[in-house]
Amino acid sequence: MKVGIINITGYAGSELARILYRHPEVEITSVTGRSAAGQQLNEVFPHLSAMDLTIEPELSGSLDLVFSALPHKASAEACIPELEKGVKVVDISADFRLKQADEYAEWYGVDHPDPTYLEEAVYGLTELHRHDVRESRLVANPGCYPTSAILALAPAVAQGIITQDVIVDSKSGVSGGGRSLTMTNHFSEVNENVFAYALGGHRHLPEITQELGNLSDETLNLTFLTHLIPMTRGILSSSYATLANPSEWTGDEGKKRIMDLYQDYYADDPFVQVVPVPPQTKQTLGNNLCLVHPTIDQRTGRLMVISCLDNLVKGAAGQAVQNMNVMCGFPEETSLEALAVYP
Amino acid sequence: MKVGIINITGYAGSELARILYRHPEVEITSVTGRSAAGQQLNEVFPHLSAMDLTIEPELSGSLDLVFSALPHKASAEACIPELEKGVKVVDISADFRLKQADEYAEWYGVDHPDPTYLEEAVYGLTELHRHDVRESRLVANPGCYPTSAILALAPAVAQGIITQDVIVDSKSGVSGGGRSLTMTNHFSEVNENVFAYALGGHRHLPEITQELGNLSDETLNLTFLTHLIPMTRGILSSSYATLANPSEWTGDEGKKRIMDLYQDYYADDPFVQVVPVPPQTKQTLGNNLCLVHPTIDQRTGRLMVISCLDNLVKGAAGQAVQNMNVMCGFPEETSLEALAVYP
Amino acid sequence: MKVGIINITGYAGSELARILYRHPEVEITSVTGRSAAGQQLNEVFPHLSAMDLTIEPELSGSLDLVFSALPHKASAEACIPELEKGVKVVDISADFRLKQADEYAEWYGVDHPDPTYLEEAVYGLTELHRHDVRESRLVANPGCYPTSAILALAPAVAQGIITQDVIVDSKSGVSGGGRSLTMTNHFSEVNENVFAYALGGHRHLPEITQELGNLSDETLNLTFLTHLIPMTRGILSSSYATLANPSEWTGDEGKKRIMDLYQDYYADDPFVQVVPVPPQTKQTLGNNLCLVHPTIDQRTGRLMVISCLDNLVKGAAGQAVQNMNVMCGFPEETSLEALAVYP
Amino acid sequence: MKVGIINITGYAGSELARILYRHPEVEITSVTGRSAAGQQLNEVFPHLSAMDLTIEPELSGSLDLVFSALPHKASAEACIPELEKGVKVVDISADFRLKQADEYAEWYGVDHPDPTYLEEAVYGLTELHRHDVRESRLVANPGCYPTSAILALAPAVAQGIITQDVIVDSKSGVSGGGRSLTMTNHFSEVNENVFAYALGGHRHLPEITQELGNLSDETLNLTFLTHLIPMTRGILSSSYATLANPSEWTGDEGKKRIMDLYQDYYADDPFVQVVPVPPQTKQTLGNNLCLVHPTIDQRTGRLMVISCLDNLVKGAAGQAVQNMNVMCGFPEETSLEALAVYP
Repeated sequence: MKVGIINITGYAGSELARILYRHPEVEITSVTGRSAAGQQLNEVFPHLSAMDLTIEPELSGSLDLVFSALPHKASAEACIPELEKGVKVVDISADFRLKQADEYAEWYGVDHPDPTYLEEAVYGLTELHRHDVRESRLVANPGCYPTSAILALAPAVAQGIITQDVIVDSKSGVSGGGRSLTMTNHFSEVNENVFAYALGGHRHLPEITQELGNLSDETLNLTFLTHLIPMTRGILSSSYATLANPSEWTGDEGKKRIMDLYQDYYADDPFVQVVPVPPQTKQTLGNNLCLVHPTIDQRTGRLMVISCLDNLVKGAAGQAVQNMNVMCGFPEETSLEALAVYP
Repeated sequence: MKVGIINITGYAGSELARILYRHPEVEITSVTGRSAAGQQLNEVFPHLSAMDLTIEPELSGSLDLVFSALPHKASAEACIPELEKGVKVVDISADFRLKQADEYAEWYGVDHPDPTYLEEAVYGLTELHRHDVRESRLVANPGCYPTSAILALAPAVAQGIITQDVIVDSKSGVSGGGRSLTMTNHFSEVNENVFAYALGGHRHLPEITQELGNLSDETLNLTFLTHLIPMTRGILSSSYATLANPSEWTGDEGKKRIMDLYQDYYADDPFVQVVPVPPQTKQTLGNNLCLVHPTIDQRTGRLMVISCLDNLVKGAAGQAVQNMNVMCGFPEETSLEALAVYP
Repeated sequence: MKVGIINITGYAGSELARILYRHPEVEITSVTGRSAAGQQLNEVFPHLSAMDLTIEPELSGSLDLVFSALPHKASAEACIPELEKGVKVVDISADFRLKQADEYAEWYGVDHPDPTYLEEAVYGLTELHRHDVRESRLVANPGCYPTSAILALAPAVAQGIITQDVIVDSKSGVSGGGRSLTMTNHFSEVNENVFAYALGGHRHLPEITQELGNLSDETLNLTFLTHLIPMTRGILSSSYATLANPSEWTGDEGKKRIMDLYQDYYADDPFVQVVPVPPQTKQTLGNNLCLVHPTIDQRTGRLMVISCLDNLVKGAAGQAVQNMNVMCGFPEETSLEALAVYP
Repeated sequence: MKVGIINITGYAGSELARILYRHPEVEITSVTGRSAAGQQLNEVFPHLSAMDLTIEPELSGSLDLVFSALPHKASAEACIPELEKGVKVVDISADFRLKQADEYAEWYGVDHPDPTYLEEAVYGLTELHRHDVRESRLVANPGCYPTSAILALAPAVAQGIITQDVIVDSKSGVSGGGRSLTMTNHFSEVNENVFAYALGGHRHLPEITQELGNLSDETLNLTFLTHLIPMTRGILSSSYATLANPSEWTGDEGKKRIMDLYQDYYADDPFVQVVPVPPQTKQTLGNNLCLVHPTIDQRTGRLMVISCLDNLVKGAAGQAVQNMNVMCGFPEETSLEALAVYP
């Protein structure tokens, strides 16, 4: 199968190439990058020197599927012509994630290039929409934060065991901010430092409420706050929710039942592991797992869920390949089998 | 004034020496350390080589005030004889923080060596107990996490603007875990990593509820969760609380009023700065400030407060010196004037 | 093929498991670990939870090949009985690297458990001894520093273009020091820090002189100095040597010729890449490459070579698997194809 | 005394403000910054909020001394008018360091704005030129790397105990590259990474050869190579030199004599400490010390010197204040007494 990558020169794009390098069904035949057009891929990314590719200004040749790793708006504008040529698309940007065009406009500050695709697009959190992904030609790959938050809360929301009061406190490494230069990725500014940002509301919030809203009749009253911590890869989200009936979840029995509930929910999902001890982002470095640990704060009757993942893999390129595998009928784990690089 | 430091060989102890080095009223005349007794201070800590001191097994000579940086239980056992000799004590351990001996026993797993001192001891969060510290001969220096959490929430609790539902999500650098060797301070295990720990309840929780409880008639329903992040110094706490009357705090006016409320509350406190943008731990590296930023999450009607400090300074040795200054009638800021080392 | 790992609980041991996990010819059937005997592998290393193994006190069952990741002396004592049972051995410790038993005793401070094996053992720097590795039943896997230093200098020494004056200045991440707890892997001590160590002579020095000595009639006058830098994985060595005839290496032509000389030397070595720009350790994270960049310091007539690798892969477990592949007739790159995880 | 800082918005400039904040003889009355003109200082640098200053486009008011922290060329152009007004100048840029205008042009790629000042300017490595600094109105503050390298080698060169063959291998934190955004200070690119750069020759090389050349009749044959390591502050240089008479420096006696030689050389220099064990950059974080450890590599007859400092303090702003103190007749250590922030 011939695959193209639009904007390989960012971190999501280069990570796609790394993951697809050994995919037995895929040949990457065309890659683009805005600033680096004309350069060999290995000049920009020496770690990809095993791949002999020239970065082009535009995709070339006949392709079966395209990944786009462009920023929002530019991504939709690049994807739609591919769709119209009959090419399947996995879009890593935010452009097809939200179902409501007005919500897109509110959070992203621009009108959507073509809202007619919003209904058709499948939100590619594979674990929630595997069936739809299988039938789709346009998958909107989820944001990195929402992947960690939705997987942490979906079982509890779907089972109706929590009230609408939910707080998600997320901690992210720096690579989630991309490869473009900003003061918030200057090493001297972010090393030995931690801070909260986007206190007025992070753009990933509406994805979380949309997707969890689909699982329940109630609307979440969600506070979602993001923090930058001094590491390159990884997101850890700590989610807090009020139990509807705390008295049902007391003691060790309560902790065991919440583990069971989560394990049942994800029993058929190879990339979600419900783990018995609090997980660490390092346990996911370079691989496609989301680790989830639910427990009960006995003093307060709250559900606490710790979830983590590699923001460039399960939070971006890995999940995109997972979606491609499902869309194309390959085994879901193909090319995603690597264990985490630890320590 | 002659001062002794018990257990200078940990991070809190050596930080005391660094801060006191230039204090115009203080001469450090005796320092102890368990494993390193007999060594020169500069063999253990080359950065303190300007101080010509030998580490002793026990304090020696006549002293006016003693700091103890021993672990809990051992600290009380070392402090009480000093008190009985008429020496003032600032105890950095947890031994005199909790007013209830049974609570101490529950959280620390040992009986308190001498509960009769618990009533007398002053909880040395200087901003809340300055008057009592001034009169005290025994100050219990607060924990690093509680300092960040209590200062974040005290104005809101004292003014009665929040309900009892509070969540504090704290992120700490590694030095808070001390200088003793453990797998959770092995560089290769904690670098490029983040995880939550003490999900069953961190020992610093009862300090927070005790102190905030003093400011209100209501008992907090507090979830307090701690995380380790890959940096050496610094704690950042993100506190979330439900506003009693959200409709009173809407819009920019609400954000301004919460800032004003906090600024008024800390108007006379030189080491608490209420800041207009979210603070960063790096802005406190090496100094005694706690930076606090309160704001309103308009979507949910929640108060959010971001607070940060250097866990070894305002979270330990700096606050201990601040308490000593108040106890001894020195200007509160003496020897604590240094600006943060940034970047 | 059935394979055992002695002491899987260190970083080299767990890295072997990570790499071998997908090896099509290998089944890991027995693993040992001193302190953790009786535990499931995933309790110690959650990132290896895909492998269902119990850590045993001793190897069990019939095995075709054993890796030992024990410390020196203990490793020889564990390997020799396996050899005597007819099992092939790749020893990651230093026990069979040096050909002279007295040199071993001098540098390691203990007598060699059985010097009769020293002659038979093949020094497993595959690129230099591939033929002997192929015929061997006992391979001594090189040290991490020597791998970077020898590969940097072998072409120049073999071609006789440098004098005996050589300086190798190496910088290593912390994982090279192992998983045991020491003050030099305490996060707060090594983060934001760099220092030189082993100024009296690092144990890896005699490997370097032995192996480079085999390539020349002259004895190197080698200064080798090691430094610890605040990262987990990676070694970068900067090697400086006096050119025998500087006038032959002037200008851009000189730089080109040294590149050509190195590229020719390593033309058939899949895991040594001679690169046109100075390499970075991050370009090797998690994979088995050693990147080498030779150039000429025109002002001084010196050869400068920058080389780097992942100390746990090409510097330990990856090279061990590479040796196993050669010993057992598998393609040399089997299970070692992963690209570096960048950034 | 009224002092101005040109370009306070870089790291050297803001570090000047941090250090001068408590200087009893200095009042900072005017500060400039190119991009941030019009902003309050605390908007750009919250850690300096104790200082109530507006960033101006140009210096204003009457000043006694000016520090310039502009890039080269721009700095000379800003300093010369001040000199002509009778204001003393400490220039942190490279503009007045080299005595030969053609050498400046060769290394910096531009003609010098006014070479007539080159003879008058004093190279402000205070330890070597204290007498001249005292009389000077124009001090060229040394580069960060040269400070570490010259202080490491000056005693050996001045005493004639080494030959001309010298290699300096330097490792620097990221802040030395400044606050402007580049790919080599992007956190995700430099974290968990180390690499050599400027293999063709770093601009700091001619300062080193100029200053060491003044101490000897011989010209050094110096190879100087720089490396970037993942930390914010700190430089560590490892210097290697061939002893003229190795037989004079054998055994423990040789090591002791080299220590004595260095200690004598720096006996009157408060900011150079000759230390008995290899120093660590963390031991200088935030203070003005350069730590130097000379020893003998007995196997090879080479001198090895490890030196380290905080590149923003002794390597830039601290040394500038040290020079100001000497120029203005203040005690040399004024405002530079703080101990290192460790850990």
